This record gives sequence, structure tokens and C-alpha cells, in this order.
Amino acid sequence: MTVARRGVAEGLGAALLLATVVGSGIMGERLAGGSVGLALLANTLATGAGLVALILTFGPISGAHFNPVVTLSAAWQGQLRWREAPVYILAQMLGALLGVAAAHLMFGEPLFSLSQHVRTGPAQWWSECVATFGLVAVIIGSSQSRPNITPFAVAAYITAAYWFTASTSFANPAVTVARAFTDTFAGIRPVDVLGFTVAQLVGALVATVLFRWLYRVQIR
Amino acid sequence: MTVARRGVAEGLGAALLLATVVGSGIMGERLAGGSVGLALLANTLATGAGLVALILTFGPISGAHFNPVVTLSAAWQGQLRWREAPVYILAQMLGALLGVAAAHLMFGEPLFSLSQHVRTGPAQWWSECVATFGLVAVIIGSSQSRPNITPFAVAAYITAAYWFTASTSFANPAVTVARAFTDTFAGIRPVDVLGFTVAQLVGALVATVLFRWLYRVQIR
Amino acid sequence: MTVARRGVAEGLGAALLLATVVGSGIMGERLAGGSVGLALLANTLATGAGLVALILTFGPISGAHFNPVVTLSAAWQGQLRWREAPVYILAQMLGALLGVAAAHLMFGEPLFSLSQHVRTGPAQWWSECVATFGLVAVIIGSSQSRPNITPFAVAAYITAAYWFTASTSFANPAVTVARAFTDTFAGIRPVDVLGFTVAQLVGALVATVLFRWLYRVQIR
Amino acid sequence: MTVARRGVAEGLGAALLLATVVGSGIMGERLAGGSVGLALLANTLATGAGLVALILTFGPISGAHFNPVVTLSAAWQGQLRWREAPVYILAQMLGALLGVAAAHLMFGEPLFSLSQHVRTGPAQWWSECVATFGLVAVIIGSSQSRPNITPFAVAAYITAAYWFTASTSFANPAVTVARAFTDTFAGIRPVDVLGFTVAQLVGALVATVLFRWLYRVQIR
Repeated sequence: MTVARRGVAEGLGAALLLATVVGSGIMGERLAGGSVGLALLANTLATGAGLVALILTFGPISGAHFNPVVTLSAAWQGQLRWREAPVYILAQMLGALLGVAAAHLMFGEPLFSLSQHVRTGPAQWWSECVATFGLVAVIIGSSQSRPNITPFAVAAYITAAYWFTASTSFANPAVTVARAFTDTFAGIRPVDVLGFTVAQLVGALVATVLFRWLYRVQIR
Repeated sequence: MTVARRGVAEGLGAALLLATVVGSGIMGERLAGGSVGLALLANTLATGAGLVALILTFGPISGAHFNPVVTLSAAWQGQLRWREAPVYILAQMLGALLGVAAAHLMFGEPLFSLSQHVRTGPAQWWSECVATFGLVAVIIGSSQSRPNITPFAVAAYITAAYWFTASTSFANPAVTVARAFTDTFAGIRPVDVLGFTVAQLVGALVATVLFRWLYRVQIR
Repeated sequence: MTVARRGVAEGLGAALLLATVVGSGIMGERLAGGSVGLALLANTLATGAGLVALILTFGPISGAHFNPVVTLSAAWQGQLRWREAPVYILAQMLGALLGVAAAHLMFGEPLFSLSQHVRTGPAQWWSECVATFGLVAVIIGSSQSRPNITPFAVAAYITAAYWFTASTSFANPAVTVARAFTDTFAGIRPVDVLGFTVAQLVGALVATVLFRWLYRVQIR
Repeated sequence: MTVARRGVAEGLGAALLLATVVGSGIMGERLAGGSVGLALLANTLATGAGLVALILTFGPISGAHFNPVVTLSAAWQGQLRWREAPVYILAQMLGALLGVAAAHLMFGEPLFSLSQHVRTGPAQWWSECVATFGLVAVIIGSSQSRPNITPFAVAAYITAAYWFTASTSFANPAVTVARAFTDTFAGIRPVDVLGFTVAQLVGALVATVLFRWLYRVQIR
């Protein structure tokens, strides 16, 4: 398949993913009657279930990355041509922004609005680093021997990571950028995006190196 | 198998689906102590889990559409004869109504009652359009390469869509019509049915066209 | 394998199932702070997840019925010798009682106590009839073509049925009898056991007849 | 693969497991607004989902025990050399402690702190005995015929056991020791660790003996 069409799949998948994350955040907050715990529970359930559906739907076309660091890690491992990576990443970014707008339209919010949700500091950065390390670890580990099961492993991981990291696990630069444009439950202040993205890149890099080592041993 | 018997499967499946949606809505509302969030969480859990069970049960007989727009999309793709579609749709409609009555009987409600739940306006229609687009996308995408996994993909999608759309994702004209006849948690005013149905048809149409294009490329 | 040893599996599985149902009911009620909805949500999650684990564990030995009406339906379909059915049912009953006692021990309750929870009347009986009809339908339907997936279909069905039936779906005479001996969240008054059991038998009978017809057609 | 590298997998997996258990406990308690039920629900969801991801990720390398009694049971069954067991157990212990520290760092807590959470007495010990019996039973039972499905069976079991045992089912000596070092939701007083560990060993021993007997019969 041409990379352009795989790009459509990545963009559409990222759009539906962001619509899920942002939309369920708004719905959760509106219906939770002030209980942040209940709102995050709904947000988690929707995101985890949505990931199962979206990865199964778009995986056969593009690999269902929806995530620049996953694309970079895949390129580094030779599963994707380096020159295709920018197409993937651009599609993910544009799709993610479209998804935010789509969610806002569903809930009667302005198309875009800048978030005021402060998410910064070492504890948050460490959270994002751990979250992304774990995500890339799960992708490499589970797909090595059972690629058919990876959609479930990834969705289960993100379900857990929403709760075990202090940042609720963005773990995805395209998601992070897009969530700067929603002043709702799932938002992040634009000024905090850079710190999250750097932490995500570090986590993904360490996981890729470590898990290639762990699994290369097994393969030999 | 004759289409009449497949129709029985579609009708019975739609009945159990509606019993699940309406029944768990009533139970959720009764036990939630005023928390709409908790009620919708229970409603979501029951619907998602119920779909897994029902699609695995009736899929081998009739394909487990339970949904006129899924039947129309399947007929358009040549997976069903056009002259069988009316049998499917009629069975879905009758089954859905029976399921509402069955749920009402379980909870001591009158057999049928007209809903007063207002669900209208552009945000709701756009929600239904997105919801049905996603549903048909997930069905086509996941079943192209891994039909065995489609029951899980569909159930996961609806679980997410209950929360990420502002309409709680009816995404099904038979479900929409039947839910007009319950004045409980899951209801919709009869006058609002048409808008939902049109939006669902548009979403399904766009998804069918787009995903046939996306996947045709891959097949060649 | 000898029927005696399969009986051990049925008894042990039923014991763990009842420990799960009753124990999680007690825990749910204690931690829910008065919210019946939250208690039932916990009870549902534990029961559904427990069923996945128990059916996968004991299925290869005994079929993992844990349920007299499932055993009777299986015997009627020729999957079990009629003379083995009493062994299965006795093991299920004894195991279920043991499981209640095991749960009570964990939570510092008396070994057995008679429930005062009123569960009676046509709406409850109709609920049990529908619940058991659905359970047997899901077992026959999903195991016909994909027996490997039946544990998930059954667990998903019960998860849904806890919420869509007014009786929270006992759907099992051994479970019903055993739950008469716990005066906690999951209990049922001893005098109400008979009505539930009759309704369960009717539901199972109708489902067995109907689904044998539906599937015989497909097989020919 | 060398045992040293399998040890790395066990340690890393145990670290991520403890980060999940402790981290989601902290997050759950912080967001639950005083509802212990809601906090435990979040803790359960994260732990169950995390186990799916971690067992699928590390299983192909080391078997994904993350648990000394599972390692001992496996060694006894000849699935592991006895001289490798200490490496596994040491890695699990160290990893578990690292995971607690990682979670504390994410939530701005001191690296380690001794728990003051009292968990003792016969009801708690009986709970741990049942919990570990069930865990080992599920592992042996489900992996005998369908090892591919064991990750889901184990995760589902622990999800249920969080609620049906009065101790919330530690069922793992490495987890128990590590949770003594967190004075948060998931903690256990250091003085209570021994009782839990003895109960876990007893449960695992009984399950190993009983299930070897149950399954040996089938195999012959």
C-alpha cells in the first residue's frame, strides 16, 4: 500500500483516538457530579476500549501507531522506512487535531480552546517517561511472539497507566500537542507540552534499546 | 440457512440487545442514587459485555447485525442479497420492540411507554453521525483481516462510544425506534427519532465508501 | 477421566464461584459507603472476571458447568451421560455451599446464616427465566462454532445480566440454593428459592429447544 | 536464554507490576473523594489490565512469574531448574522494591516509607491462603491445555480476587514485602508480612498438589 494511504489510516485513527480521549473526558466530567475519580474511570474505560477497536481496525493497514514515538521506534527497528516516518507523524498530528475539533463539536464546545490545566514538574515528567517506556516495552515485547495479541496488550497497558502514573499517561507527543487545544478535562497547558514530549522521547528511547537487547538474546 | 431462520436469529439477538440496553439503564438509574455517571457506567458495562455475548452467539447464524445500517452496508458490499435486507431489518425492528417489552416486564414497568427524553439538535446529530461512522468503520476494518475478532472490536467500540459521543451513541435505527417506546433512562422522544436515523445513515454511508476505498487498495 | 474426578472439578469450581459471588458482595457492600450501585458494580466485575478464570481453569476437565441446568441441558444434548448428571449436580451443590462458608470465613461472618433478602414475584421470576434462557442460548450458540471462545461469551453474558435483569441474574439453581445460606448482599430468602429454580428450569428448557432448532438447520 | 537475562525480565516485570499496584492505589485514593470502594475499583482495574499487558510482554522471555510462589511451584513441576529459582526470586524482590520507589517518585512521595496498614488475623490469613490457592490453580489449570490464554485467566482471576478476599489478594510474597515499604493505600505493616507469606506458601502448596493430581488423571 502506498504511504499516502497508510497516512490516511494513521490520521483517521488518531482523530478517532483523540475524539475518544477528549469526548469521554468531557462526558465523564459532566456526569460525575464533581467526583474526579468517577470521571477518570469513565475516561479510562472509553480510552482502553476505544484503543482495542481502533488498533484492530487500522492495524492491518498502517500498523495503527497513532503515536510519533511509536513510529520512530518502529523506523529505528527497520519496520518502517525512515522517509515514511514524517508522513506518519504529520498525519498523526493533523488527525489528532481534527479529533479534538470533532469532540468539541459533539459537546457544543468551541472548535479549539487553549488548555489551562497545569501539568509540569519532575514528578509529571518522570510519570511520562515511565508511561512511554512501558508502552514501547509492551509493543515490542508482545508483538515479538504474538503480534495478533498486541492490540489487547496495548489497550490494557494504557488502561492501567491512566491510573498508575501521576500524569494519567499521555505517552504520545501527537496526543499531547492536540490536548493542548482543549480547555476541558483532558487538556494540558501549551507551555507544558515540551516537557511531556521530551520525557516521552526519553522513555521510548530507553525501552527500544533495552527491549531490543532482551529479545535479540532470545532470537539467537 | 434460509433467510427466515436467519431472521429469527436477528430478531432474537436484537431483542436481547434491547433488553440489555433498556434493562441495565433502568437498573443503573435505580441503584445509582442520583449519580448519572454511575448509571451510565453500569449501562455501558452491560451493553459492551452483552454485545460480546450476543455477537458470539448469533454471529455464526446470521452475522449478528442487529442493526439496519449494518445490514444495508453489508448488502451494498455484496455480503447479503438485497432482497434479504428487508427481512433482516423487519426482524431487527420487531425484535427490538419485543426486547423493550421484555425489559419493562422484568422491572415492573408498563409494556411500552413513550419517552420524554429530549435528544435533538446539531451536536446530537453530529454525535450520531460520528458514532455510526466509527461503528461501520470498525466492522469493515476488523472483519477484513480478522473476522474472528470482530465481536470484541464492536463491543469495545460501543463501550467507548457510549462516553465519547454526546448522544451516548445509539448508532442503530432499530435501537433508536425501540428506545422511543421506553420512558426510562435509555429513552428518546419519538419526535427525535428521525434526526438520529438520518445522521446514522449518513455516517454509515461515508464509512462504507471510505473504508472500501482504504481496504480495496490493500487487497490489490 | 472418571466422573468422580470430574465431579471434584465441578465442586471445586462451584466453590470458588460462590466464594467470588458472596465474598465480593460482602466487600462491595462494606466499601461502597451506602451506594448499592457501586456495590453491585464491584460484585459484577468480580463475578465476570472470576468466571473467565474459572471456566478456563476447569473447562478442560469437566466442561466447567458449575450449574445444574447447564448440566441437564448438556445431558439432553448428548454431551454427558444421563447417569453422570446426578454426580455433577451433587458436586455443584456441595461445592457451592462450601464456597459460601469459605467466603464467610474470609470476612469474619458465621459459617452459614439464612438470608432475609426478599426476592419474589412475577417480575423476579420473569427475570430469572430470561436470564437463564440467555445463558443457555449463549452457551449453545457460542460453543457450536467456537468452543474456545465460550468462557469469554459466558462471562460477558453474566456481566451484562447482573444489570439487565431485575433479579441480578442468579440463573443457576446451585448458586440460588447456596445464596440462601448467606445473610449478606448476595443472599436470597430460603422461601424464595423454589420460584427462582422453577423459572430457571423453564428458561433453560426453552433455550435448549429453540437453539437446537436454530443450529440444527445450520448444520444440515 | 541465560538465566541472568530472564532474571532481568522478571525484575523489570515485577517493578512495573508494583508501580501499577502502588501507583494506582495512590491515584485511586487521591481522586476517590473518600470512597474506599471507588479507590479499590480503580486499583483493581489498573492491576488487572496491567497484568494482561505485563504477562503478554514478559511471558515469552521468562514465563512472567513475578511471584516467588509461582516460581517455586513451577520448579517443583520441573518447568524450571531448581538452581534457577533463587535468581528468579531475588530478581522479583529487587524489582518489586524498585517499582515501589518508581511509583513514589511519580506521586511525589518519599522513596520508601514503612506502612502502618494493619493486615493480620485468621480471616486475613485464610483470605491469602484462598487467594494464592486460586492463583496457582488458575495458572496450572489454564496453562495445561491453553497456555496462550493464561495471561487473560491470571489477570481475570486477580481482578476477581481483589474483591472476593478480605485481604484484597496479595497472593505473592515479593509483592507483600515490597508493599510493606509504602505508607499508602496498598501498604501492609512490616510485622504483618510473615503471616501473609506463610499463608501464601500453604495455599500455593495445596493447589500444586491438588491440580497436579487433577490433571495427571486427564493426561493419562
